[in-house]
Amino acid sequence: DSTFDFTDNSHRRYNPLTDTWVLVSPHRAKRPWLGQQEAPSKLEIAEYDESCYLCPRNLRATGSKNPNYGSTFIFPNDYAAVKLNQPGLSQGRGNDSERDQLFKTSSVEGNCYVICFSPKHNLTLPLMMHKEIVRVVEAWISLYRQLEEEANQGKPFKYVQIFENKGTAMGCSNLHPHGQAWCLSTVPNELMKEFTSFKKFQDSFSKHMLDSYMEIELSERERVVVENDSFVVLVPFWAIWPFETLVVSKTHLPSLKEFNAKQQSDLAAILKNLTTKYDNLFSTSFPYSMGTHQAPLNASEEEKKISWFHMHFYPPLLRSATVRKFLVGFELLGEPQRDLTAEQAAERLRTLDGITHYSENLD
Amino acid sequence: DSTFDFTDNSHRRYNPLTDTWVLVSPHRAKRPWLGQQEAPSKLEIAEYDESCYLCPRNLRATGSKNPNYGSTFIFPNDYAAVKLNQPGLSQGRGNDSERDQLFKTSSVEGNCYVICFSPKHNLTLPLMMHKEIVRVVEAWISLYRQLEEEANQGKPFKYVQIFENKGTAMGCSNLHPHGQAWCLSTVPNELMKEFTSFKKFQDSFSKHMLDSYMEIELSERERVVVENDSFVVLVPFWAIWPFETLVVSKTHLPSLKEFNAKQQSDLAAILKNLTTKYDNLFSTSFPYSMGTHQAPLNASEEEKKISWFHMHFYPPLLRSATVRKFLVGFELLGEPQRDLTAEQAAERLRTLDGITHYSENLD
Ligand SMILES: O=P(O)(O)O[C@H]1O[C@H](CO)[C@@H](O)[C@H](O)[C@H]1O
Ligand SMILES: O=P(O)(O)O[C@H]1O[C@H](CO)[C@@H](O)[C@H](O)[C@H]1O
Repeated sequence: DSTFDFTDNSHRRYNPLTDTWVLVSPHRAKRPWLGQQEAPSKLEIAEYDESCYLCPRNLRATGSKNPNYGSTFIFPNDYAAVKLNQPGLSQGRGNDSERDQLFKTSSVEGNCYVICFSPKHNLTLPLMMHKEIVRVVEAWISLYRQLEEEANQGKPFKYVQIFENKGTAMGCSNLHPHGQAWCLSTVPNELMKEFTSFKKFQDSFSKHMLDSYMEIELSERERVVVENDSFVVLVPFWAIWPFETLVVSKTHLPSLKEFNAKQQSDLAAILKNLTTKYDNLFSTSFPYSMGTHQAPLNASEEEKKISWFHMHFYPPLLRSATVRKFLVGFELLGEPQRDLTAEQAAERLRTLDGITHYSENLD
Repeated sequence: DSTFDFTDNSHRRYNPLTDTWVLVSPHRAKRPWLGQQEAPSKLEIAEYDESCYLCPRNLRATGSKNPNYGSTFIFPNDYAAVKLNQPGLSQGRGNDSERDQLFKTSSVEGNCYVICFSPKHNLTLPLMMHKEIVRVVEAWISLYRQLEEEANQGKPFKYVQIFENKGTAMGCSNLHPHGQAWCLSTVPNELMKEFTSFKKFQDSFSKHMLDSYMEIELSERERVVVENDSFVVLVPFWAIWPFETLVVSKTHLPSLKEFNAKQQSDLAAILKNLTTKYDNLFSTSFPYSMGTHQAPLNASEEEKKISWFHMHFYPPLLRSATVRKFLVGFELLGEPQRDLTAEQAAERLRTLDGITHYSENLD
């Protein structure tokens, strides 16, 4: 046969957000696996764990005591990656000498927060009620607003990266349902790359890249996983992780701050649906890293124009609850490589139940 | 105190090879770890394993039988990520419409190889003799030459990525000492980024970036780990992984093909020294992904000018044989973050024994 088959032949796909490529080797999913096995999720965990530093009323490593919180709880990370009030760093002499070119550095200030999603130690987003997830979205919004206000009062806050690492496979060190928010005086790499790409596309087509992309995906439907009035979830054409998804707002919302009540509720609903599908895929508590990409704090009109709220989900599992994809040698030195197509992943996620969690069918 | 302290204050460093930044949070290494534990290495493994598909004389999954090889052994990967002879992919209509911009794709052909380093199942580079590692370097060179010849005869080979994933933490599925070589019809992302940066630097300073960088590092010595006549190992200023290193040739060698006998021997010697230090760091068989960056196959004079042979080592361990660094939520969504400085890592590696392996001191 001489027709190119995207489900069998190797090809590269371009990621227009980051201006990089991914190698797709769809025939490769068949190889045997004798490597590392992930721990499958435990189902029997208590609602309260006296040794957990995130449970209500417990002591944290630094000696602070958690309040008896009833829904969400935000507090400054006891081991923050960035801090406020550090000495200034005198900049190099410019960019003219070879040394200046090769040893560029700048100071980064900021603050890091932990956001507990629920007082119950044994929950995860898909196991929480819709109205409880709405509280999480509200917590993100209130933090975003608070940080903007503090920036107005002089704090060096430029961007806040909200994210969740779920599961030990994604470096999470505490099962208690929680995410983080790192607020920095600089705009991180990935955002800078996206903003640059969005700006270029906007200049060429007088349209936001995600608007244009979503329009095509919603008409072709091959990579759409689920949608509601305000959001669509899809496996991007250029996905790297096996079941990577993109959650995109259907209208132009630069950041969480612009969400109305209906949009807040719709985001919570689609997150519950997506994470339920993920858990149902391999009947396990599905690990992932996920987070928001949105406008910088106190964005200018120009920054708002090129910002479009979306979330990325990067889940590592490939073939089962215990076999993950490793992005290692070739991926780190050459380029990311995946073993099934975005369309194959989307179809599996689309057909999965997003309402009933697999654990409800176990006795 | 109002002086900026690079060993305590958060800062960003620029990676001039890939035009990206890394966030350095040196104070963060102190946080407790309750997350995933890696398996420490086993010391009691037999020289021959009858269930290993890489050991001499054994059968592979596809039914081929390995020869009774005595030093190295190269064969085509039974589960190759790219293949020869697939149907052509008609290109999109150009780059003018929104759809063309968002759904760029191209066919990738090529071939993948496995390179067994030794017939002995229980060896690793640091446990092999210098002269045995010279055989590995020779195997890489002979493969590079063979691929160039095949390309001359019409095979679509443009670049060969030689690498090793060592240890289950880096996705390795077989302990038997081996690496891989993926030969593609395209030049992967990471190489393209480096070539672009090298070209720009060369145009500005009439000098190769790595030449200039090495010169500065060799005079300042803060980040140098070890050197010999032909190579230097250093922790790059912009390192991401905790104990990441760069092995750079001291003179302009575009690829392995240009190595003379002394340089081949010196590369083997410095690889033995570096991997011995790595194993001695946490008294374990130290996992990593490593590989070569060099000139494309049958490089033009211009390509040779901007290519400079070097190797990257990306090892995940952070604090002990069982606690690794996870590059997850913030890293994937924002930018890479590290918990100790490049200088701290270099000092630890520099002072470690690179001659005697820790296992020789155990009974
Ligand atoms: O080819 P292997 O060793 O089976 O596979 C390993 O290395 C490959 C190249 O880095 C990765 O794509 C795989 O995820 C990893 O498990
Ligand atoms: O902050 P945590 O949950 O302790 O740490 C986890 O997330 C961080 C942000 O992605 C990473 O830098 C750490 O490597 C990871 O273990």
